[in-house]
Amino acid sequence: MTLPLPAAPFKPPYAACIFVYTRTTGDNGYAERAGEMAKLAANQPGFLGVDSVIDADGYGILVSYWRDEQSITAWREHAAHAAARVAGRDRWYEAVTVHVATVERAYGFTRPGTRG
Amino acid sequence: MTLPLPAAPFKPPYAACIFVYTRTTGDNGYAERAGEMAKLAANQPGFLGVDSVIDADGYGILVSYWRDEQSITAWREHAAHAAARVAGRDRWYEAVTVHVATVERAYGFTRPGTRG
Repeated sequence: MTLPLPAAPFKPPYAACIFVYTRTTGDNGYAERAGEMAKLAANQPGFLGVDSVIDADGYGILVSYWRDEQSITAWREHAAHAAARVAGRDRWYEAVTVHVATVERAYGFTRPGTRG
Repeated sequence: MTLPLPAAPFKPPYAACIFVYTRTTGDNGYAERAGEMAKLAANQPGFLGVDSVIDADGYGILVSYWRDEQSITAWREHAAHAAARVAGRDRWYEAVTVHVATVERAYGFTRPGTRG
């Protein structure tokens, strides 16, 4: 069994974009576009990693980690991402809150044998 | 139908504790203690709010929002919370990553009619 695991801590300081959302009902092209956006984001300068969880009610949290806030701003202004955000507001999300933050401390543990 | 909704944005700056985890299998007293901790946290000085999502695989993200990082540290040092963390490491979590951050910007939207 492959467990979904948290991204390991990065070396502070770095930036985090906390995206909390409730999905509308129905897919409306969401899954495909979200997959494209995830791939594109992972190729942007300054991208470090991501954690993303959604439950059966369509309530989700996606935290992306970046080298600095400028990297988040650049991704925000990326044309394909900007277009996806319009669709998000129009069709995919019932409610969204975004928190842009600087991470000052990070730590964690993994039970022995869990990773690889 | 009552949708689970993201906490509304707070007025920056404030602190966020991003807790990302994978649960072990079985409850092992987790649900009851987690409920107690949520109630206790909500009564601590500086607590602003929380967003918490877990999926069917036991992969979850809990983000708690606080007036400042001192409030997070005080909650971390609370005796009942410290005891729960020991149980978390021993029994409840396969892997955990914690990111402590300062939120500099926050925004969001709610589709008209969604909230109350």
